[in-house]
Amino acid sequence: MIQTPYLLFLGDAPDQLAAKVAQGIKDWRPGNAVGQFRMDGCGADLGIADMTLEDGLAAGAKTLVIGVANRGGFISDAWKEILVKALGMGYDIASGLHNLLRDEDELVAAARVNGRTLFDVRIPSVAYPIANGQNRTGKRCLAVGTDCSVGKMYTGLAMDAEMQKRGMKSTFRPTGQTGILITGGGVPLDAVIADFMAGAVEYLTPDNDADHWDHIEGQGSLFHVSYSGVTMALIHGGQPDAIVLAHEPTRTHMRGLPEYDLPSLEALRDMVLPIARVANPACQIVGISVNTQHLSDAEFEGYLAEVEARMGMPAVDPFRQGAGRLVDALDVV
Amino acid sequence: MIQTPYLLFLGDAPDQLAAKVAQGIKDWRPGNAVGQFRMDGCGADLGIADMTLEDGLAAGAKTLVIGVANRGGFISDAWKEILVKALGMGYDIASGLHNLLRDEDELVAAARVNGRTLFDVRIPSVAYPIANGQNRTGKRCLAVGTDCSVGKMYTGLAMDAEMQKRGMKSTFRPTGQTGILITGGGVPLDAVIADFMAGAVEYLTPDNDADHWDHIEGQGSLFHVSYSGVTMALIHGGQPDAIVLAHEPTRTHMRGLPEYDLPSLEALRDMVLPIARVANPACQIVGISVNTQHLSDAEFEGYLAEVEARMGMPAVDPFRQGAGRLVDALDVV
Repeated sequence: MIQTPYLLFLGDAPDQLAAKVAQGIKDWRPGNAVGQFRMDGCGADLGIADMTLEDGLAAGAKTLVIGVANRGGFISDAWKEILVKALGMGYDIASGLHNLLRDEDELVAAARVNGRTLFDVRIPSVAYPIANGQNRTGKRCLAVGTDCSVGKMYTGLAMDAEMQKRGMKSTFRPTGQTGILITGGGVPLDAVIADFMAGAVEYLTPDNDADHWDHIEGQGSLFHVSYSGVTMALIHGGQPDAIVLAHEPTRTHMRGLPEYDLPSLEALRDMVLPIARVANPACQIVGISVNTQHLSDAEFEGYLAEVEARMGMPAVDPFRQGAGRLVDALDVV
Repeated sequence: MIQTPYLLFLGDAPDQLAAKVAQGIKDWRPGNAVGQFRMDGCGADLGIADMTLEDGLAAGAKTLVIGVANRGGFISDAWKEILVKALGMGYDIASGLHNLLRDEDELVAAARVNGRTLFDVRIPSVAYPIANGQNRTGKRCLAVGTDCSVGKMYTGLAMDAEMQKRGMKSTFRPTGQTGILITGGGVPLDAVIADFMAGAVEYLTPDNDADHWDHIEGQGSLFHVSYSGVTMALIHGGQPDAIVLAHEPTRTHMRGLPEYDLPSLEALRDMVLPIARVANPACQIVGISVNTQHLSDAEFEGYLAEVEARMGMPAVDPFRQGAGRLVDALDVV
């Protein structure tokens, strides 16, 4: 686990979008961030306290988290100077960048000299077991999408937040870089060796209290031929009791695959349920999470009502409407 | 690609079963093996010429292939002495052992000094791309099993051999260690990083002549929760035109998963076809390959007739009956 709280490194982010990871931390785990560290010319601002490295330490920060995408695919000298200084002051550093911290000699040396840890959350740090398929106590919910990047992480985070608000027992279980940095731990599933994918998901979602819910972050899509194997391992390793279908209604083709049409929600429902019931015969599809960001205020409610009538289950945009009705829908499980 | 022909190293194999890889090479690619190398006390015998390392070289062997499982999970000093000598004489060495050749300092040093190559076929040697899902020319056939280890590799090898015999264009495409050593190349799919699994299968089965068939080696099972993600990636990366269902009728539970029943052939058929048609809308299930090794001569034909009537397609044990009827069944594609 990455030690919290964090100081969020925004570097010289050109704009707000580049600071997506830091924004996610601030939105979902504001208590995990004591402040933001911005370099001259930084175009992003989370609206939280600007801090120097010294300020961050004084506020209790344990880890400097790279909350921003880097430009040009390398870690610049200007960044490195700050990161080396932070290691010298006692920070660990965590990053989800493609360029690994561990590939930078200066950072490795500074971490070693100062007894600090570099977390490259894109790379598994655990030798995961092969899945054993055994039943586990506690409940698990998984969002399964018609496509990649349709709001599966958002859905899981929003359902977890709603449960926390209600005083229910729940945990968000990240399976990707952003989610891991938000919560401080998880499994970077797309970087796991094929034979151990389902076992990694079992490892991530162990036995728990009977009334506890794990909200497992979804990945890929059963209909996305590049990544469907990862989705399959999530379903069989996760043994979900409840599945939420996730959809973005304005896509014209599968992400990155111009020759592939999106499946209907009915086709996804019909494919996923027999698959899920191999691992958990009691699994049910409880609702639909729709990312309506490209629908206007005038359009989105009508669309959701149509989906809800057609599919016979709640259809909700958790960003616009909150995840309350999706959490309510778990009652049937 | 591993250079052929091979000298097959049987070492001190305690019995014939331990030499399964060498037996596979001798059965399916006898032209790939000039002879066998046996140590004192070797309990396996392929029935081909016994050769010293010198004999093997004289007969044209390029690679010494470890055709045997090792005992105790380590490469013994007695083996290493022979392997180092072989490298010094000009052999490459290929192995599918869990213990990697590259982890043995003496072997690495001897390979370097002599300019030879160590092939650990369990480990990918290629940076596979992410799958792009584009249609490819040529035809592909994939065996998909109700369980692991039900005869999928055998089915693919037998169908390829039958096509070769008929003068048809075909290639067996290995996705596991044994298959890779038999043919000299392939993809060790269970060791590929999750994001690249389907891309590795695309890489393995590129565009080909319109009347050429790739017989892709199957792995895992959609119903085996430990490995189903690998199977999924094979189906979506392989884009099969034809699927053969593979089954072993006497299993009492899924391999290694005592809590899991085997699916019926009908359940497998109903699950696999919509999945396969995501990547190849023309995909058809053409026949059933049954491993009847645990059925008597009196039983097996009756069982196959029953399956054939029930499923409405040819049901064949390619070991007992040859793969002719499965190859005939490809005509419908």
